[in-house]
Amino acid sequence: MSARAFLAGLGFSLLAGSAVVAADPLATLTSQAVTDRWAYDFLADLTSEFGPRPAASPAALRAAQWAQQRLQRAGFDDVHLETFPVTAWTRGPESAEIVAPLHQSLAVAALGQSVATPAAGIDAEISLFKSFQGLRDAAPGSLSGKIAVVTQRMTRTQDGSGYGAIVGMRVTGASEAARKGAIAYLIRSVGTDNHRLPHTGVMVYAKDAPKIPAAALSNPDADQLERLAANGGVKLHLALASESHEKAQAVTVVGELRGRETADQVVLLSGHLDSWDLGTGAIDDGAGVAIAAGAGHLIGLLPQRPRRTIRVVLFGAEEIGGASKPYADGQGSKIGSIVIAGESDFGAGRIYQACLPGDSAGSAFGKKLAAAIEPLGVDLSKTPARHGGADIEDLVERGVPFVQFSQNGLDYFDIHHTADDTFDKIDPAELAQNVAVWASFAWLAAEDGMDFRAAALQAPAK
Amino acid sequence: MSARAFLAGLGFSLLAGSAVVAADPLATLTSQAVTDRWAYDFLADLTSEFGPRPAASPAALRAAQWAQQRLQRAGFDDVHLETFPVTAWTRGPESAEIVAPLHQSLAVAALGQSVATPAAGIDAEISLFKSFQGLRDAAPGSLSGKIAVVTQRMTRTQDGSGYGAIVGMRVTGASEAARKGAIAYLIRSVGTDNHRLPHTGVMVYAKDAPKIPAAALSNPDADQLERLAANGGVKLHLALASESHEKAQAVTVVGELRGRETADQVVLLSGHLDSWDLGTGAIDDGAGVAIAAGAGHLIGLLPQRPRRTIRVVLFGAEEIGGASKPYADGQGSKIGSIVIAGESDFGAGRIYQACLPGDSAGSAFGKKLAAAIEPLGVDLSKTPARHGGADIEDLVERGVPFVQFSQNGLDYFDIHHTADDTFDKIDPAELAQNVAVWASFAWLAAEDGMDFRAAALQAPAK
Repeated sequence: MSARAFLAGLGFSLLAGSAVVAADPLATLTSQAVTDRWAYDFLADLTSEFGPRPAASPAALRAAQWAQQRLQRAGFDDVHLETFPVTAWTRGPESAEIVAPLHQSLAVAALGQSVATPAAGIDAEISLFKSFQGLRDAAPGSLSGKIAVVTQRMTRTQDGSGYGAIVGMRVTGASEAARKGAIAYLIRSVGTDNHRLPHTGVMVYAKDAPKIPAAALSNPDADQLERLAANGGVKLHLALASESHEKAQAVTVVGELRGRETADQVVLLSGHLDSWDLGTGAIDDGAGVAIAAGAGHLIGLLPQRPRRTIRVVLFGAEEIGGASKPYADGQGSKIGSIVIAGESDFGAGRIYQACLPGDSAGSAFGKKLAAAIEPLGVDLSKTPARHGGADIEDLVERGVPFVQFSQNGLDYFDIHHTADDTFDKIDPAELAQNVAVWASFAWLAAEDGMDFRAAALQAPAK
Repeated sequence: MSARAFLAGLGFSLLAGSAVVAADPLATLTSQAVTDRWAYDFLADLTSEFGPRPAASPAALRAAQWAQQRLQRAGFDDVHLETFPVTAWTRGPESAEIVAPLHQSLAVAALGQSVATPAAGIDAEISLFKSFQGLRDAAPGSLSGKIAVVTQRMTRTQDGSGYGAIVGMRVTGASEAARKGAIAYLIRSVGTDNHRLPHTGVMVYAKDAPKIPAAALSNPDADQLERLAANGGVKLHLALASESHEKAQAVTVVGELRGRETADQVVLLSGHLDSWDLGTGAIDDGAGVAIAAGAGHLIGLLPQRPRRTIRVVLFGAEEIGGASKPYADGQGSKIGSIVIAGESDFGAGRIYQACLPGDSAGSAFGKKLAAAIEPLGVDLSKTPARHGGADIEDLVERGVPFVQFSQNGLDYFDIHHTADDTFDKIDPAELAQNVAVWASFAWLAAEDGMDFRAAALQAPAK
């Protein structure tokens, strides 16, 4: 695609005069985001050379070393790796078949942290529930010796809120089923596609229930089981060979663009370098690390650094949960130096809305940001930011203000956590729009003296 | 969906007056096709209860027995099974991994009739060609000890013609590669999607080349290999455990609606009951057998049979090639009784054009057909039919005239021959339009005295 086509696609017509562009750092950033391929190439190389990058895997470690070099070459300061312990998890061979009434193979994927089945697998009749509530309402003991199957569907939404509404079925369902006597747990994939590619994702065992194996069926396979279960007598064979690995070492990559005046004040941009094991983690979250690093890269190309420091953090263990705590803990008393944080972790779908802490939108900073991102198709909301991203949650709990960019997520859950999460799904123009928005925000937040902590305490003006 | 919505979707507004509908068999057929769920239920049950139905497999045999009963219950005459010998083929466990520069799994599927690798698999460097011609142009011996990979892309077209343009890469490529010294052969899937679901399909070994294992990569995996191969040094591990089975028994299902006057003249409608083993054969070709049988079912509901016999043939071994020859041979001298034949084997995509033998379009029959199918959105072309479908080729070679209905195939090759070929991909309104068109054609061809053999010999009027 030509630079002009990119520009038109992003609504950049106001920036076409290059003399103007050179004079204004914000205009330079948004203009360069359109033509610069650094973030796109970063993502292509990350996903192609290292493939899937489960937390603490050899591929994740090598990808972190590579990212360190890539940031160093881009001129980031103090680029380093931070290692921390996690309980890693690896998928083994896995299969599921209908064995009665007639033999058919099913497409399944173990849920992350699921225990294995016995080596010979599990053979049992199914009890199928079309809603998670149906499973919850089942009588104790009623699933004794059965494989519990829940086939509730996720709703497709622009903002991805359909995910939060149903993901409990994946995270907590196995223990619900085990409490009723089930010996294994299968769910319809938490996803909006109709492909034979199951969606994995993390699950957690409750302490008061037996640990039973848990896996996701692809959506067409869940449909198939629903149709067959209507006649009863469906038996499955399920074999999962997953393993947990305690005290594995995950790696986070950190690099900075040191501020020219108030270097001890930090604007933190992030994504996560780890991915699930089925795909190559292009939308989750290669895109996010490319966007955060790409925004930093563009700012690094400007004639002078902004006043505050911009820090890019590529977290190393988002998918297995709770992994940003070591980073937040590690900040110690320096946590107050982080003036604002943000995470890009929703693919490369176009950003349509920004939310800032408290009443920041009404401030002089807010007006400057609104003017910078409006030509990129982004509306600055007066509603305060509510969700900052999983990796910065532990920072947020410690009082760090955060920014939230809403992206078009209509298609995100078609491929999220599946083998289909690969580089070909990335639209370069949409990735460039994300880089432009994050770079504009980061530069302004680092150049402006805005006190986000104070703003976060204020309700927005009506 | 309501009957009215169906009707509107199909452009049936002219048929809304039910008094008119009752008087005219053609109007009755098209009207009932909209509300009748027989074909859709046939397809749901076929794909759900029997799953994949490779020729001569236990599932294919059981599906044939079930289809026999379903046709008998629908009032077809002389419903019977015809058994014939084939060389069947079964897929075993299969895997492919990049082992250098870094380990990554690839999504592959053995091509139909491929030999197995040694049990330990094959480990070799790849030679990658972005076009099939590139492989053909490679020097003899230049691929010695290598795995040849061809990543040419299929073009998406309305009429599916992109398939014919490239399928030689799948059918003949392994022997091309073997002649240059390759020890295995991998292709980009012959398909238009970007999912991690490889497209299988039949291949044929030439007599003058060693038989080497052959498999298809999913499109994203082919992309990944292309990116990595640009730096060289890519090594793969490939393991396929396929098996051939000579003298297996495939089964074709035949049923008739005996004509009320000239029962010895036969209008033959067909599809194929066998499928590939990865999906449940909904678009290939559960839809076709549901359409052919469904058209017969609707005609059977009319107050009286048409003059000629309508025969529905559900062929038993299309996917492994050449399997209609036993049926054609079995007709012997009765081949002349088949006045016209047709096959539905392109999913349930909407029909937009019909082609008849020779100059039939200009005949009185042609005018009646055009009037019947125009409200269904189908144009009767003056161009003679050129391709009748793989299963009726042997009939055509023996002089049987044939009809050809062109369907919208823009998306067909997204899921053709993949695990994604499942019932959820069927649009009931589009299936109903197909049934309406085939039922209209079959009834008219059986009621009218049209001599298609004579017409087939005439060039169409300009």
